[in-house]
Amino acid sequence: MTATVTQTAPREDMSTRVEEVLRQRFAIHCENAEVYGAEFAALWRATADHALGGKLVRPRLLLDIHRALVPTAGEDAMIGAVDIATHIELLHYAFLLHDDVIDGDLTRRKRPNLIGQLAAGTPGASEQDALHWARSSAILMGDLMLSAAIMGFARADVPAHTRGRLLDLVEQTILETVAGEHTDVALSHGIIASDVDTVLSMSVYKTATYSFSLPLRAAALLADSSTSAEKTLQAVGRHLGLAYQLQDDLLCIFGDHRTHGKDPFSDLREGKETAIIAFARSTSAWHDIEPRFGSADLSLQDATSMRDLLRECGAERFVIGLIGDQLDAVYALLSEAELAGEISSDAARSILVSTSRLEGRHA
Amino acid sequence: MTATVTQTAPREDMSTRVEEVLRQRFAIHCENAEVYGAEFAALWRATADHALGGKLVRPRLLLDIHRALVPTAGEDAMIGAVDIATHIELLHYAFLLHDDVIDGDLTRRKRPNLIGQLAAGTPGASEQDALHWARSSAILMGDLMLSAAIMGFARADVPAHTRGRLLDLVEQTILETVAGEHTDVALSHGIIASDVDTVLSMSVYKTATYSFSLPLRAAALLADSSTSAEKTLQAVGRHLGLAYQLQDDLLCIFGDHRTHGKDPFSDLREGKETAIIAFARSTSAWHDIEPRFGSADLSLQDATSMRDLLRECGAERFVIGLIGDQLDAVYALLSEAELAGEISSDAARSILVSTSRLEGRHA
Repeated sequence: MTATVTQTAPREDMSTRVEEVLRQRFAIHCENAEVYGAEFAALWRATADHALGGKLVRPRLLLDIHRALVPTAGEDAMIGAVDIATHIELLHYAFLLHDDVIDGDLTRRKRPNLIGQLAAGTPGASEQDALHWARSSAILMGDLMLSAAIMGFARADVPAHTRGRLLDLVEQTILETVAGEHTDVALSHGIIASDVDTVLSMSVYKTATYSFSLPLRAAALLADSSTSAEKTLQAVGRHLGLAYQLQDDLLCIFGDHRTHGKDPFSDLREGKETAIIAFARSTSAWHDIEPRFGSADLSLQDATSMRDLLRECGAERFVIGLIGDQLDAVYALLSEAELAGEISSDAARSILVSTSRLEGRHA
Repeated sequence: MTATVTQTAPREDMSTRVEEVLRQRFAIHCENAEVYGAEFAALWRATADHALGGKLVRPRLLLDIHRALVPTAGEDAMIGAVDIATHIELLHYAFLLHDDVIDGDLTRRKRPNLIGQLAAGTPGASEQDALHWARSSAILMGDLMLSAAIMGFARADVPAHTRGRLLDLVEQTILETVAGEHTDVALSHGIIASDVDTVLSMSVYKTATYSFSLPLRAAALLADSSTSAEKTLQAVGRHLGLAYQLQDDLLCIFGDHRTHGKDPFSDLREGKETAIIAFARSTSAWHDIEPRFGSADLSLQDATSMRDLLRECGAERFVIGLIGDQLDAVYALLSEAELAGEISSDAARSILVSTSRLEGRHA
């Protein structure tokens, strides 16, 4: 910790800083790539465009909680937090790239993703060749993003003890995320039977661990919080992350498609094993849902009738209840930690603000 | 460096140690994986089997050169060298996994690779589903192997300055290897035109950097050698690695298929852009070679007639000459370094022993 205490920058400035640091690093990578040929440099430039297009949800979460935990953090500590925040964003993008290869996705937020862009950039090639080129490039660039993220943790300018804990954290995070993605693929092929418990733990591993627990725990480590505070934040992250994923699942099927920006009913067309589906499988309604579940050419009429069946069988209500359980658990964990003096009221409030933003998404 | 100087173990013992350390680490990983489900634990066990089946060429190279650079190394230094050697083996396996996904390979040394084994382990699934499951698993496990390799460098029990140099080394290695693989994919799709220079630099980046320069430079760093000695060993590694790759290319087409263990003429069936092919493209013989180059169902008769054309057009002679150039460059670099007192005669001799083993492969 530095002795100089400076005025902390307003919230918006911090995520601008994250973006600036990322932009500068990508500019260096793009320049360094030139020596390996024009195609490789072009891949870096395209990657920079896509990686910089995110909403920086994870870096913002880390920086918000870090500020709440250390309101008087000096400039050095802020720079350190921004640094780790940027590497969490790179880890996110590494996971996205390999997920998109595995899921066969060519778009993201209704626009071509890196794979879609690269595949479209090979005129004259067969569709199969264009996709192979694009996916191979995404596998390789995902490796570089993963490598860069871990390097960022390994080179963190913090005491050796903290760096050791940061490395353990990122290692466990990568293992859990990969385990969750592996289970997701197994579920999609029917190699693992889909039930609510399996789907929920898959969601925690695949999404909550790296998107919520990681930034919260990293903030705690950088703030030199106690191990028990870190454990609380890890649990909070799991519940928040699961709530977030369940909300997302609900939106895709039951949300107002004019406002939420997701591809309506895409989960039903893709046959995605969500908690909604896992619940429905255990009801008598499944008999009527199953035949059309996972049809790529699902009509709007079929989709809305499936939505109605999912509502009537209680799947929507069940998942709304699950979200409530997660948020209750978050409140309980934070109150307890506040009472025990593990986490300040400010930190607890800051996390609750994130929670209310999450609830806002459903509206 | 520890003050206690112990008798160094004989060479075979050191690679046994590498295998033992790898086996122990995989056992822990397999056990830790259980909590994420039976399928994920099974993936780890299958991975351990395949990853432990290698010839440990890279770890042996590191340990040989390390011993030559520090003949009086104590037990602590040996443990440190074995540790980095094991992580280089994991990096190698990470690259193999993602390469096999990209190249569509299902076998290695005539036996199913991890992907081939996993695909065969899903009875009842369509071929497409089985391959998707197997390749997705290999992408994800490759991520874990890559992560484990970098973690090993980040946690090296060496002075901070050396660890910083090791991290820079592994980062540059990953970048170059990925760049080389990306160029290889671009060549295979005709996105980059194939010429001798491009193919040679691709081979240096894709193979020589991580298989030769990395173990040699890591040995130099662990031995606390000078920066100039490390640079010499980097250059030596590039030339040796290129010689090794060119030898491999020659064997596949011109070698005695009863003894070399490779799939005869596979490079011709796969349309692999080797230096042999790049040279042939610049000759009038290409007109007769091109029509059947890259035919998956190439007959033995067609393959031998292509081999004869490649011999007659001078491609074999040209590549044999290139190998000679690489070995000459190695001798020159080592003599110069020995004269300058950068590298001991023992170290130089040890590297030349590796070189002669390489020449032996051709016989």
